[in-house]
Amino acid sequence: METHIRNSFDKQGLMATLSARIDSIDPGRVVISAPIVPQTSQQHGFAHAGLTFALGDSAAGYSALTTMAEGSDVLTAEMKINLIAPADGTRLVATGEVIKPGRRLVITRANVETEYADGRRKLVAVLQGTMVPV
Amino acid sequence: METHIRNSFDKQGLMATLSARIDSIDPGRVVISAPIVPQTSQQHGFAHAGLTFALGDSAAGYSALTTMAEGSDVLTAEMKINLIAPADGTRLVATGEVIKPGRRLVITRANVETEYADGRRKLVAVLQGTMVPV
Amino acid sequence: METHIRNSFDKQGLMATLSARIDSIDPGRVVISAPIVPQTSQQHGFAHAGLTFALGDSAAGYSALTTMAEGSDVLTAEMKINLIAPADGTRLVATGEVIKPGRRLVITRANVETEYADGRRKLVAVLQGTMVPV
Amino acid sequence: METHIRNSFDKQGLMATLSARIDSIDPGRVVISAPIVPQTSQQHGFAHAGLTFALGDSAAGYSALTTMAEGSDVLTAEMKINLIAPADGTRLVATGEVIKPGRRLVITRANVETEYADGRRKLVAVLQGTMVPV
Repeated sequence: METHIRNSFDKQGLMATLSARIDSIDPGRVVISAPIVPQTSQQHGFAHAGLTFALGDSAAGYSALTTMAEGSDVLTAEMKINLIAPADGTRLVATGEVIKPGRRLVITRANVETEYADGRRKLVAVLQGTMVPV
Repeated sequence: METHIRNSFDKQGLMATLSARIDSIDPGRVVISAPIVPQTSQQHGFAHAGLTFALGDSAAGYSALTTMAEGSDVLTAEMKINLIAPADGTRLVATGEVIKPGRRLVITRANVETEYADGRRKLVAVLQGTMVPV
Repeated sequence: METHIRNSFDKQGLMATLSARIDSIDPGRVVISAPIVPQTSQQHGFAHAGLTFALGDSAAGYSALTTMAEGSDVLTAEMKINLIAPADGTRLVATGEVIKPGRRLVITRANVETEYADGRRKLVAVLQGTMVPV
Repeated sequence: METHIRNSFDKQGLMATLSARIDSIDPGRVVISAPIVPQTSQQHGFAHAGLTFALGDSAAGYSALTTMAEGSDVLTAEMKINLIAPADGTRLVATGEVIKPGRRLVITRANVETEYADGRRKLVAVLQGTMVPV
């Protein structure tokens, strides 16, 4: 499954454009991170909500994929994000988890933290949404 | 207000990275679009949900900004996206609108359509969320 | 289909408890309303968010059912509600609509208005969510 | 604060209509439950999504209130619910928690479980949303 997920990830042009990488893959739990750089910022130099969403959604989606049959693929049906603090660090780290696996719908959530240069982390966003196998 | 919005948009590194542009600015309504290219794709070559979200969220946010006092800035507090069809065209067009202006919270929505080479369009996502003035 | 929907509605104990009624059923569009009374209020005497949600969700769900095969049933997979004004009138009117029909997922939305004694209406909530046929 | 919350709860007509009660109040965490009875069912005799939402939303709202200044009141700005299993037990138990307190926005979540006659519990819904002090 890990190879399948890494192959899928490598085909996502946006993840490469965002310099995102997979940090870990475990059953029902995937961590994806990316640097906060001028190319992915909003108007104040913080990480753009689009980056935060993209990482959180991808981590949630791949966490769902770890619960599906080998060879499956996954699409986001819907996702809700609450942005709770400015992403003013140097790196965004998204942890996706499966709340409830299922054959037709997989319910997921993700936390996105910003990491500062000194290694401290702060929660910047929480996501909750539905993945569908295809 | 239009100058203020265009200046803010030009400071968003992610919008440049996504080759996004503002197509129109009207009171309570802003249109933003970007090409669907390999650099912003998901694993099947369609537009990545992160791109769809980023355009829809930005269009919604700037539509909210058109209803605020000159000099204001806006942050997304929360946003929900339903992805309803694959974004298999050549360009994504996001139309943000204000459902309810307000001093503390502005309720917005956005439609994101994919545009095909022949000019036809198809709805690919709907967003609904809350903007806060800062 | 109208008979099927009315039979389903009549089996919902909560709808009777809320004194809710179906006002109209059209393809892809269902209107449900209920009085704002002390039994369904929140702490300030306005309609409780739970009532607003219940009506909006039911209107959205039955609007989805109008697009499904005869004999189908429908469940809410997920629903997002933005509450945008106090529901201080005498009656809540929820209009559910289908954004995108589908075999596996039906994307819906609903507007909930409060109606005053003089017939004026005010938008109090917007909902967006996913229904699944069962 | 506990007295303030119980007084507010007792003024909510809908909570009495649903036979809901507060099970516990702790800083950042409130539990509310109600029986699953024909008066609050959907068409299959399970708990109606409106009941599930009302309990989850109230538990989340009061958990937010525990983090606010004495005398405050709280409104739901928006709430997202994912319904993940049929609520086929005898009682619904909603646990609301604060993800992030704040002066202007409080981010909350809630889990709703159904309890069977033998005491077993099953997760039936997860909620995530924003409360505002008023």
